[in-house]
Amino acid sequence: MRYSVEDLTEICVRLLKALGATGEEANIIASQLIEANLRGQDGHGVLMLPYYARQVLEGKFQLGVDITVIRETPSLALINGNWGFGQVIASKAMELAISKAETQNISLVGIFNCNHIGLVAHYPMMALKHDMIGITLCNSGPQVAPYGGRVRKMGTNPISIAIPSKKENPIVLDMATSIVAAGKVRAKSAQGEPTPDGWIIDGNGKPTVDPEIFLKGDRGEPGGGMLLPLGGYKGFGLSIIVDLLCGALMEAGCSSTDLQRGNGVVMSAIKINSFTAIERFTDRVDALIRSLKSTPTAPGYDEIFMPGELEFRAYKQRRKAGIEIDGQTWRNLESLAKELDVHLG
Amino acid sequence: MRYSVEDLTEICVRLLKALGATGEEANIIASQLIEANLRGQDGHGVLMLPYYARQVLEGKFQLGVDITVIRETPSLALINGNWGFGQVIASKAMELAISKAETQNISLVGIFNCNHIGLVAHYPMMALKHDMIGITLCNSGPQVAPYGGRVRKMGTNPISIAIPSKKENPIVLDMATSIVAAGKVRAKSAQGEPTPDGWIIDGNGKPTVDPEIFLKGDRGEPGGGMLLPLGGYKGFGLSIIVDLLCGALMEAGCSSTDLQRGNGVVMSAIKINSFTAIERFTDRVDALIRSLKSTPTAPGYDEIFMPGELEFRAYKQRRKAGIEIDGQTWRNLESLAKELDVHLG
Repeated sequence: MRYSVEDLTEICVRLLKALGATGEEANIIASQLIEANLRGQDGHGVLMLPYYARQVLEGKFQLGVDITVIRETPSLALINGNWGFGQVIASKAMELAISKAETQNISLVGIFNCNHIGLVAHYPMMALKHDMIGITLCNSGPQVAPYGGRVRKMGTNPISIAIPSKKENPIVLDMATSIVAAGKVRAKSAQGEPTPDGWIIDGNGKPTVDPEIFLKGDRGEPGGGMLLPLGGYKGFGLSIIVDLLCGALMEAGCSSTDLQRGNGVVMSAIKINSFTAIERFTDRVDALIRSLKSTPTAPGYDEIFMPGELEFRAYKQRRKAGIEIDGQTWRNLESLAKELDVHLG
Repeated sequence: MRYSVEDLTEICVRLLKALGATGEEANIIASQLIEANLRGQDGHGVLMLPYYARQVLEGKFQLGVDITVIRETPSLALINGNWGFGQVIASKAMELAISKAETQNISLVGIFNCNHIGLVAHYPMMALKHDMIGITLCNSGPQVAPYGGRVRKMGTNPISIAIPSKKENPIVLDMATSIVAAGKVRAKSAQGEPTPDGWIIDGNGKPTVDPEIFLKGDRGEPGGGMLLPLGGYKGFGLSIIVDLLCGALMEAGCSSTDLQRGNGVVMSAIKINSFTAIERFTDRVDALIRSLKSTPTAPGYDEIFMPGELEFRAYKQRRKAGIEIDGQTWRNLESLAKELDVHLG
């Protein structure tokens, strides 16, 4: 079924408030779930709400709590998220990073005790309208093998960076440091399809294309599989950097040693006009985009895509046409509504 | 032939002084060339000296010039390198980044008008003894295809990050955002070997394993080949980020649009104890390294290597045994010495 953004937002807000969310929390969480659907990242969209609700009901996600800034300088801050919703904590952290960069030109803000922050690209993109570059790094529980290993030790540890442009779409990189995000393996399982070569290995370290073996690993079952790092030792290296910045520097704990759940997060903002005039900068960004987009393509490719370009296309199309919600996700939302005694409309 | 570090340093210093280098310049450049050899990165080692000398003699590399800081705040600086040697400029820039982070906790320093900076890992490693994390990004002239394209548009645009440890070796990531660094293709050519699948494409965008086709591209000849980005769209995305930070933010120009030669560079330093006690941090780094190193290996792998670990091993071995210089490199050094009327000893 297809739903308008407005209807879907209303449904999410109503469910979140029934769970105990304040109006502010419900609005932040709902709008970010739906933004993920709009950008074509359904794995971080409204399908997460029943899972989040379960965490609230089990006391693992807190509603109505605020962040605590435990260390602060004019350009830095370290935030205890007090196990609130990741979307709420991370939005506040990036707002703080932006306000610090406004006066200090560059900022760095870390978060610990933070649940799943959802669509990572959301946070660096908050910096764009302030004529800043936004950076978000995030570690998570182990799902990825070290290069050459056969035990889950690294999170998918994504890197997301947003850079403003003038007439072109901004550059929005949002990439796991594993070969793909775990959600893509789950999507293959849901579709009953094998995964492409080179995504996963089983518990013996042998390549496999069976997504069910990865899901066994998710459940901690013996022989369960894991993702491979992006490009071998390079993705593994990037993942270690993300893990140490989020886990060791920002007190969240590292994936393989002490991260229990949730995300350790690093936010940074850089004010562009502290180095060069914003107009001059965005002209250069546009010029690079045009140069790259105009490159003759190699056999098998029709177009050169910029980081985030496909997501901007999906957003434009879905904002107009509405968001398709699959039957299983809708049934999960209905059953949650029943449990919370909420009418979906 | 094998040379001791001391003899090789003396030779390089003598040649550089004969070219017009000040004592400080000669020491910085010589020690960094030899550091590259020690770390097993011979492509950035003393074999570069005859090439650098040619650039000096043609007036493209300046000796005896200083950097100009053209913009500065307590935590930021933008540096005009005045086309001096990259090693000298970049060392001064990282020193400035470290001194700024000492008081401001985080710093960001950019460089333009800068020649080849050599071994990138050298600069972030300068931060280690100050209990800081060091970061260096660097763009360069086009040698890499955009993902899906068949024209050189991106530099190999490396990322290097150094993180201090306690008892283990520090983490030193130093990676091109292309599938490999260009030097590895040149090494295959020198050895008369094909390149592995997936490294390069020809001017029609078709995969090739012939390193000579890449070298044709280096010379700007029609049909010349190029490197592929690391892991497809992800490496391409990282490369765009590096290009925009170095080229657009730091005034050096982007690879495919206006970078004529040399490197645009970003340096950053983060003071660890502004977030957490250094002891606590380095304990966590050691714990992560031990956890990762102890991972059971997958078939075909004997050991899990940390970023920079192979380089530390090479360093230890070569520091003791001396540095092997191949015949061609030695003949090039001899012929330079003759031209400059220098006795090699």
